[in-house]
Amino acid sequence: MMSAPMNDLGIVRRKITRAEKAAVDKLSRFGVATLHEAMGRVGLMQPYMRPIYTGAHLCGPAVTVLLQPGDNWMLHVAAEQLREGDIVVAACTVENTDGFFGELLATSYRARGAKGLIIDGGVRDVKVLAKMQFPVFSRAISARGTVKATLGSVNIPVVCAGARVNPGDVVIADDDGVVVVPAGLAQQAADAAEAREANETDKRAKLADGVLGLDMYKMREPLAKAGLKYID
Amino acid sequence: MMSAPMNDLGIVRRKITRAEKAAVDKLSRFGVATLHEAMGRVGLMQPYMRPIYTGAHLCGPAVTVLLQPGDNWMLHVAAEQLREGDIVVAACTVENTDGFFGELLATSYRARGAKGLIIDGGVRDVKVLAKMQFPVFSRAISARGTVKATLGSVNIPVVCAGARVNPGDVVIADDDGVVVVPAGLAQQAADAAEAREANETDKRAKLADGVLGLDMYKMREPLAKAGLKYID
Amino acid sequence: MMSAPMNDLGIVRRKITRAEKAAVDKLSRFGVATLHEAMGRVGLMQPYMRPIYTGAHLCGPAVTVLLQPGDNWMLHVAAEQLREGDIVVAACTVENTDGFFGELLATSYRARGAKGLIIDGGVRDVKVLAKMQFPVFSRAISARGTVKATLGSVNIPVVCAGARVNPGDVVIADDDGVVVVPAGLAQQAADAAEAREANETDKRAKLADGVLGLDMYKMREPLAKAGLKYID
Amino acid sequence: MMSAPMNDLGIVRRKITRAEKAAVDKLSRFGVATLHEAMGRVGLMQPYMRPIYTGAHLCGPAVTVLLQPGDNWMLHVAAEQLREGDIVVAACTVENTDGFFGELLATSYRARGAKGLIIDGGVRDVKVLAKMQFPVFSRAISARGTVKATLGSVNIPVVCAGARVNPGDVVIADDDGVVVVPAGLAQQAADAAEAREANETDKRAKLADGVLGLDMYKMREPLAKAGLKYID
Amino acid sequence: MMSAPMNDLGIVRRKITRAEKAAVDKLSRFGVATLHEAMGRVGLMQPYMRPIYTGAHLCGPAVTVLLQPGDNWMLHVAAEQLREGDIVVAACTVENTDGFFGELLATSYRARGAKGLIIDGGVRDVKVLAKMQFPVFSRAISARGTVKATLGSVNIPVVCAGARVNPGDVVIADDDGVVVVPAGLAQQAADAAEAREANETDKRAKLADGVLGLDMYKMREPLAKAGLKYID
Amino acid sequence: MMSAPMNDLGIVRRKITRAEKAAVDKLSRFGVATLHEAMGRVGLMQPYMRPIYTGAHLCGPAVTVLLQPGDNWMLHVAAEQLREGDIVVAACTVENTDGFFGELLATSYRARGAKGLIIDGGVRDVKVLAKMQFPVFSRAISARGTVKATLGSVNIPVVCAGARVNPGDVVIADDDGVVVVPAGLAQQAADAAEAREANETDKRAKLADGVLGLDMYKMREPLAKAGLKYID
Repeated sequence: MMSAPMNDLGIVRRKITRAEKAAVDKLSRFGVATLHEAMGRVGLMQPYMRPIYTGAHLCGPAVTVLLQPGDNWMLHVAAEQLREGDIVVAACTVENTDGFFGELLATSYRARGAKGLIIDGGVRDVKVLAKMQFPVFSRAISARGTVKATLGSVNIPVVCAGARVNPGDVVIADDDGVVVVPAGLAQQAADAAEAREANETDKRAKLADGVLGLDMYKMREPLAKAGLKYID
Repeated sequence: MMSAPMNDLGIVRRKITRAEKAAVDKLSRFGVATLHEAMGRVGLMQPYMRPIYTGAHLCGPAVTVLLQPGDNWMLHVAAEQLREGDIVVAACTVENTDGFFGELLATSYRARGAKGLIIDGGVRDVKVLAKMQFPVFSRAISARGTVKATLGSVNIPVVCAGARVNPGDVVIADDDGVVVVPAGLAQQAADAAEAREANETDKRAKLADGVLGLDMYKMREPLAKAGLKYID
Repeated sequence: MMSAPMNDLGIVRRKITRAEKAAVDKLSRFGVATLHEAMGRVGLMQPYMRPIYTGAHLCGPAVTVLLQPGDNWMLHVAAEQLREGDIVVAACTVENTDGFFGELLATSYRARGAKGLIIDGGVRDVKVLAKMQFPVFSRAISARGTVKATLGSVNIPVVCAGARVNPGDVVIADDDGVVVVPAGLAQQAADAAEAREANETDKRAKLADGVLGLDMYKMREPLAKAGLKYID
Repeated sequence: MMSAPMNDLGIVRRKITRAEKAAVDKLSRFGVATLHEAMGRVGLMQPYMRPIYTGAHLCGPAVTVLLQPGDNWMLHVAAEQLREGDIVVAACTVENTDGFFGELLATSYRARGAKGLIIDGGVRDVKVLAKMQFPVFSRAISARGTVKATLGSVNIPVVCAGARVNPGDVVIADDDGVVVVPAGLAQQAADAAEAREANETDKRAKLADGVLGLDMYKMREPLAKAGLKYID
Repeated sequence: MMSAPMNDLGIVRRKITRAEKAAVDKLSRFGVATLHEAMGRVGLMQPYMRPIYTGAHLCGPAVTVLLQPGDNWMLHVAAEQLREGDIVVAACTVENTDGFFGELLATSYRARGAKGLIIDGGVRDVKVLAKMQFPVFSRAISARGTVKATLGSVNIPVVCAGARVNPGDVVIADDDGVVVVPAGLAQQAADAAEAREANETDKRAKLADGVLGLDMYKMREPLAKAGLKYID
Repeated sequence: MMSAPMNDLGIVRRKITRAEKAAVDKLSRFGVATLHEAMGRVGLMQPYMRPIYTGAHLCGPAVTVLLQPGDNWMLHVAAEQLREGDIVVAACTVENTDGFFGELLATSYRARGAKGLIIDGGVRDVKVLAKMQFPVFSRAISARGTVKATLGSVNIPVVCAGARVNPGDVVIADDDGVVVVPAGLAQQAADAAEAREANETDKRAKLADGVLGLDMYKMREPLAKAGLKYID
C-alpha cells in the first residue's frame, strides 16, 4: 500500500546483542518469582503461559519472532539465527492458538543450539517434546497445523503475552511463569535476586519456627494505623 | 466516607465456631463429588479452582480471608488465627490472578498448624509447594508479587469462587473440585455421604458385571414416557 | 409444540455403520497432529478438549450422544448401544461444564466394551478414572452432579467442540487434541498418515544433523519473493 | 497430501435448494425466541452472536461460506452465488475475530440481492454498515484486515456459532439472537410459531390483569409435588 | 439423599423485611458509582452485568430468586411474592446464559408491581422489553428457552454476579453496574452518598476551571514521598 | 530491592515529541480500518477495546500512562502533562477492569485540553461522559472505585490492549477499534490512507453496479490455480 515500509514486517535482523553469558548463567540459578520481585515487579508475561510438562525450566537470551496467525514460516527463518543457549520467543500479530511448533522444529532448534521456546500461541507433539525434554511454554496445546505463506519478522522488538521482549533480552521460565530481563540489566537483576534469596533463607527459618510474619515484618503498627480491628 | 463502618473491611474475628472434629474427620473420608451429591448438590466452588499438583486433598474447618487485589496483607494477619487442622479460604474483592501466596507463607502456615489453602486468586513457588506437599487449590498460578497496603478482613463470611463460606465451615477439596459444608451440617453431611457410598458399592459391582443402568435404575419406563424412540 | 417432531431430540438409532476395523486399527498407529495434517487440516475439535490424565490415547468408532445441560440421562441410554472398541462422543445443546460422567458410568461403559469418552462438558471422579486408566477427553473437570430428566439423543450427527461427528466415524485423541475421521475416509486417511510419517522420518534425521528447514524445504526463494529482508 | 480430496475445502456448490419463498415470508413475521420455542428448542446459534446495530433483523435462505482465519477470499466467491433475498452465513475453521467484512463487500452483496450477513468472526466499517442499514450479526467488531490466499468453500454444510447450517436453510436473526430452520421444515416451523403466538396473546392479557402464572399454568400442584415449601 | 433438608433449595419465604421506603427513595437519587464509594467500595456486582437498553435505571428492595440452569420455574413462583416497587434479583446455581425471562414474565411482574429485574443469566424479547421500558440488567441476551422442572428458592440469601444479596436489601442499577445496599444500612448509605455528592460539586467546578487534582487533592507531597521522579 | 531503579516505574517524562499537527489533522479524516490497512496491517489494539457510546471518535497524540491495578493516581499526575488535542492512553500492569476514570477526571482532562481517553481498564459515570461527549474507549465499564497509593508512570512506552504506544504517537479510535500510528510515520500513513480511499471510491461504484469482486480484483485465475472447484 505504501512505497516505503511503514512497519517491521518482513525483516530479519542478523546481529543482535545478547546479554552477557556470565549474567545469564547467574540468572539461571533463580526462579521466576524471585527475579520478578528483584526487578521491582515488572517484566512478567501473563499467567496463561504454561509449561507443556511439569518441571520445565529455561534461561537464556531471546531470539524473537513475530508470527502471523496460522503461519509458522518465521519459525523456520529463525532457526538460522540461533546460537548455542538461545531461547526462541514467538509473539503473534493476533490472539491465536494454532499449533505452530512441533517435533520437527524442536529437532532442528536443538541441533542449532536452542534451549527451548516461549510462544504466545499453540504447540503440538507435546508427548514427544516432553520425551525430548525440550522445554516449551505456550498459550495453548493444539494439533492444528499452520501454513508458510505470510511474512512476519525475526529479531525485532515484540510483545509476547503482554511483556515487551527485545532480541538479546534474557527470558527465564519455570512452573511459576515467564519473566523478561532486559539485556542491559541482566547482571544487576542477578545480583538483586541473589541478595533477595539470602534474605529469604533467614526468614524461612524463623517462620518455620512459628514466628509470625506479623512480628517478623513488624506489621502490627501499620495494620493498626490502617484501622484494623480485632473482635471476639 | 462514613462515620460508622458500613462494611466488613478491616475486621479480624478471633473467636469462631469450628465444625466438630469428629464430623470433620468423618467428612475427610469422602470425595468432593460424593459430598456434593449427599448435600443435595449445593456448596460447590466453580470448576476453575484447581489443585496445584495432582492428588492434593484437603478437609478441615475454614479460616476465611477477604483480600484486596494485588495485596496479601491479610494472609499474614490470618496466620495468627490458625489452629491445628485449619484450612485458609481466601476470597478477593475482585477477579484477580496475582500470586498472593508462596513458599514463605506456606512455611508459616504449616508451622501454625494449617493444612492447606483454597484461594480465588493466584499462587507461586508451586514447585516448592508441591515438594512440601502443601495442598493449594487456586484460580491461577502466577509469579506476580503483591503489596501489603490495603485492609481486607479475616473470619468474616466470604464468597469464594461462587460459594459462600462462613468461618468454621468445613471445606473439602480434591481433584474434582472444592465443596463447602456448613459447620452445623457437618455430621449430617458425613452420614449422608456414608450412606451414599455404601449404596454405590453395590451398584458398581452390578455395572461391572454388565448390568445396564437402564435396568438397574429402572429408567426404561420413564424414558418411554418422556417420548424416547428407538429406530433402526 | 408441533404435531410432528421438528428435530432430532428423543431418538436412539440402534444400527449405525462403524468404520471398518482394519482402517481403525491402522489409524490407531498415528497421532492426532499427523492425522489432522494428512486429512488436509480438517476435523479437529477445539483445543479446550484436554485429557484428564497425561498420556491418555483413544482411537475407535463413535457412538454419539446429544446431552441436555445438567442432565446425563442419555449417557445411560448410550451404554446399551455400545460395542467392543467404541468411543462415546458426547455433545451438549449448550456450553456446559457439569460433571456428567464419573466412576459408575465408566465401570458400566468398560463392561460394555467402550474404550473411552470424548465429552464437550465436565467429568468427575478423575482420580479413580485415572487409576482405572479409562481415557476421557473433556472440556472441564467438575464435581457438579446431573439429573436424569430431559431427553437428548443417541447416534444422531452431533457437533462436539466445534467438530461434526456422525455415528460410526473414527475419533482419535491424544495429548495434542481430538480429531474426527469420517467412516468412509478411514482407510484413505490412514494411508495418507502412513505416507506422511515415512516422509517425516527422513526430514527428522536431516534436521537433527543441523540442516536448516530453510534449505530442506527450499524456502529461501519464496521468502525473498515475498519480500523478506535481512539486515545487520 | 492425498490424491483424492478428503474434505470439503475448495468447493463451490452452485445449485442449492432454497426453502420455499412462501414459508420464508411467513417465518419473517416471527421473532427468534418464538421460532426457537416452536421448533422444540433447537437450531439456536450461541449468544455471542450480536447485531452490529440495535433493531437489525434478518430472515432468508442461507448461502453458506467456510472461511479460513484471517482470509476473506471466499466471501468474494460467494457474491456470485447470491440470489435476491439470500443471507450469507459465514463460519470459520477456527475461532477468529478478524474483520472479514466491511463496506465494500456489503455494497457488492446488496447489489447482488443479499439481505445481510451472519458471520462467526469479525466485521468492520460498522458505522457505514449501520448507515446503509445492512444487517450483520457477528462474533466481534474488528478493524483487522484479511488476506485472500487460502481456499475455503461456498454452499457446503457448516457449523456456525455452534449451529449446523445447510445451504438453503432459513436463518432468522434479531436482537435476541440467530436461529436456523432447516429448509424442509420451514413451513411447519412457521405454522407452529403462528400457533404459539396466537396462544401468547391470550396469556399476555391475563398476566397484564394480574393473574399469576402459577394459576394460569396450573403450577401449584406440580410445585407442591416437587416439594416446594412456603415459610414465613 | 438426606432425611432432613441440608440446603435452601425448595423454599419460598413469604415474609421479608424490606428496607424502609424513605431510605430507598433517597438512595434512588444517586448513581451506582457514588453509592459504591459511599459504602466504602463494597457490594458491587461483577461488571459483566449490563443493562439491556441504554439508560435503564433501577432502585428498590430485592425479592431474591435462586434458579437452576435452564429452568425458570422459580421466576413464576416469585411473582406472587412481589410488592409495589420490588426488584427481582435472580441468581443461578451455575454459570448459565439461558433466556430465563421475556415479555410474558415482564408483563406479569409489572402487573404485580415489580420495577425490574437483575439476573445472573440470560433474557430474551429484549426489543419488546425496551419498548415496555422494563429495566433488566443481565449477564447475557439469549433466545434459548427454559423448562419448569427443578426447584430453586425464593427469598433466600443469594450470591448474584459475585455480590451477596439478602431479601429486602436495596439494589441500585444504572449504566455503570449494579450495587447492593444491605437493608439495615440503607439510610446511612443514602446520607453518605448525599455528603459525597455535595463534596463533588465543588471539586467539579474547580477542575473545570483548570485546577489540577494534583493540587486540589494535595497529592504532590505523597507522590514525592513515594518516589515519583520528573524527567525531561 | 535494588539500589538503582531497574524499571520504568515512578517516572514522569515532561518533554515528549508529539506527531506534527498537520499530519494529525490529516489522519483525523480517516477511519481506523483504512489506516490499519494503509500501514500494512499493524498497530491495532485488541477488539475488546470498545467506545462507551456509539459514534465516539478520537485522533491525537498520545500522553501515555502506566497504571497499577485498582489505582488511578497516575491519571491525576498525567493531567498536568496534557496539551491541547492530546489523548490519554492508559495501560495497566495486569489485566484489570476497575473503574479508573469518571466524570471528575473527564472534567479536569477537558479543562486541560485533552480530547479523550483510551484505557485498557474500566471506566464509570458513562452516562455523564456520554452527555459531555467525552470519548472514551475502554476494556470495560465498571463502577468499582480505585485508590491512590502506588506509583506507575507517565509518558513511558506502554503496551495497551496488545499494541505498543510511545508518547507522542498518534492514536485514532472509532467504532471499529483503536489504531496507533508512530509519530515519525504520521504523515506517510495519512498519505497512504488518502491514496487508499481514493482507490476505494471507484471500487465502491463498480460493486454497487453489480460488478463482482471476482472480476474486479481478477481473482478467478488465482482461485482456479489454488484448486477451487465449482460443482452443481
